[in-house]
Amino acid sequence: MFYTIDILGTIAFAISGVLVAIDKKMDLFGILIIAFVTAVGGGTLRDLLIGNTPVSWMRDITYTYVIITSAMFAIIFRSKINYLRTSLLLFDTIGIGLYTLIGIEKGINANLHPIICIALGTMTASFGGVIRDILCNEIPVIFRRETIYATTCILGGIVYFTLGQLPIDNNIVYIVSGIVIIVTRLLAVKFKIALPNIYKN
Amino acid sequence: MFYTIDILGTIAFAISGVLVAIDKKMDLFGILIIAFVTAVGGGTLRDLLIGNTPVSWMRDITYTYVIITSAMFAIIFRSKINYLRTSLLLFDTIGIGLYTLIGIEKGINANLHPIICIALGTMTASFGGVIRDILCNEIPVIFRRETIYATTCILGGIVYFTLGQLPIDNNIVYIVSGIVIIVTRLLAVKFKIALPNIYKN
Amino acid sequence: MFYTIDILGTIAFAISGVLVAIDKKMDLFGILIIAFVTAVGGGTLRDLLIGNTPVSWMRDITYTYVIITSAMFAIIFRSKINYLRTSLLLFDTIGIGLYTLIGIEKGINANLHPIICIALGTMTASFGGVIRDILCNEIPVIFRRETIYATTCILGGIVYFTLGQLPIDNNIVYIVSGIVIIVTRLLAVKFKIALPNIYKN
Repeated sequence: MFYTIDILGTIAFAISGVLVAIDKKMDLFGILIIAFVTAVGGGTLRDLLIGNTPVSWMRDITYTYVIITSAMFAIIFRSKINYLRTSLLLFDTIGIGLYTLIGIEKGINANLHPIICIALGTMTASFGGVIRDILCNEIPVIFRRETIYATTCILGGIVYFTLGQLPIDNNIVYIVSGIVIIVTRLLAVKFKIALPNIYKN
Repeated sequence: MFYTIDILGTIAFAISGVLVAIDKKMDLFGILIIAFVTAVGGGTLRDLLIGNTPVSWMRDITYTYVIITSAMFAIIFRSKINYLRTSLLLFDTIGIGLYTLIGIEKGINANLHPIICIALGTMTASFGGVIRDILCNEIPVIFRRETIYATTCILGGIVYFTLGQLPIDNNIVYIVSGIVIIVTRLLAVKFKIALPNIYKN
Repeated sequence: MFYTIDILGTIAFAISGVLVAIDKKMDLFGILIIAFVTAVGGGTLRDLLIGNTPVSWMRDITYTYVIITSAMFAIIFRSKINYLRTSLLLFDTIGIGLYTLIGIEKGINANLHPIICIALGTMTASFGGVIRDILCNEIPVIFRRETIYATTCILGGIVYFTLGQLPIDNNIVYIVSGIVIIVTRLLAVKFKIALPNIYKN
């Protein structure tokens, strides 16, 4: 199941990369590259930091096929894809939820402290978008005000470890903390919830 | 022979870094850093991704000497170097061709899928220029329209693996695919060949 | 003693990250991230390049606690922290001095050439600031003219290796080369010493 949703997350991230790259009027190759780094950036950083090399996407060609196919699809149907933005947000959020959990799990396997595991999960989920924005020469979405993008990953990670202390089946822990990330983020987007403004108006 | 042209590629990349850094009015140290990352950036990313650490340039001091010498040369003769831009393009292109093949070879040694090997070769050839442009706060050359920079690396990689299937001497496979990259790129620059424009005018 | 000043350096770098992020009007989470990457960025690059994974800050939770505490402190007292900028420069400079020596030491342990060790030390000391500036979408401080930021690290590294040839106690070598970095930098800031201007006026 993890693998399936991982692939779904990869698809969503690849498409989001295509949309940003088209906004920047990049050429075909540039679009593919942005799609690729958005999709694999987080996992690559995670694997490098814990020393899991060659990094995952290099050992499993499936990711590459999925990304190229999704990107081609997004490029061909780019005029229609704006209608899909709502379901894209959903895919993207599912991807973020799952990437967070996968990152946490890899951290646990490397015997890291829970806080570090959550950081690793958050990086896995959000770093792809950060590189995408740096390559497109924008201040990363994740650092702009009104964005609680990564905060939801941390929240999900806390839920994950809190539930993990209790005598609950592991699969339920995964599902609940995944849902927390997804629902929190969707609610935050819908109701424009933001982190507290620390600046004087 | 590989090593010789690797050094030639290093020289060309170091000089291209100096030219960009001078355009940005950086100080002496900034120029040296940009020269360095342009020359070693691609190989560093490659080594990190496949877990080949300490990375190559840290284990062989020759690269450092070559880069510092080339950069100093470029700084001192910067007013005359514009006359050399044509031969620079040639050096740069030879470097790209060879860096691509070296990356592919390292990928094969790490038992990676041919497509991943080509990606690795392309990254080895082009990542130095990407970091150079990020550090200089520009949208990387590689992502701007009219640029088929990296596309030629991929083409060369495909030729490499296609010929590798046939009963041909390995050295010939190297030379032919290297020449494909170099000639394609020079032709693309000369005739301003670009990837298809996917935007409405 | 190394560990103590390492922590002091971490505090200074975290606070400097907060100050830059607040200037960019980032939200609370963005500020924490910038504080974090400024503080751990250099050590992370160092560990990745020499293959020392999982990277240091992932194996010792102390760094995370120190960074979060310092950042929170800096955010709460941000209106008063401008009065502290002078002592901040001091902390920051001590941090740079020590990060340089730690980087050099790790390079020696990995059997690298002295020049590479100095490069590693300089990267350890300065890369955090580079990522901070890239994420905030500015040309890194280190590459702007009038900045001799990293030059002092190299100078300290040269002193370190020169003294190391002589029959001098190792601790004295550390202290002297550390002081060289710190004093040089403070003098450079005070007297606005810059690298030679290579541009025509």
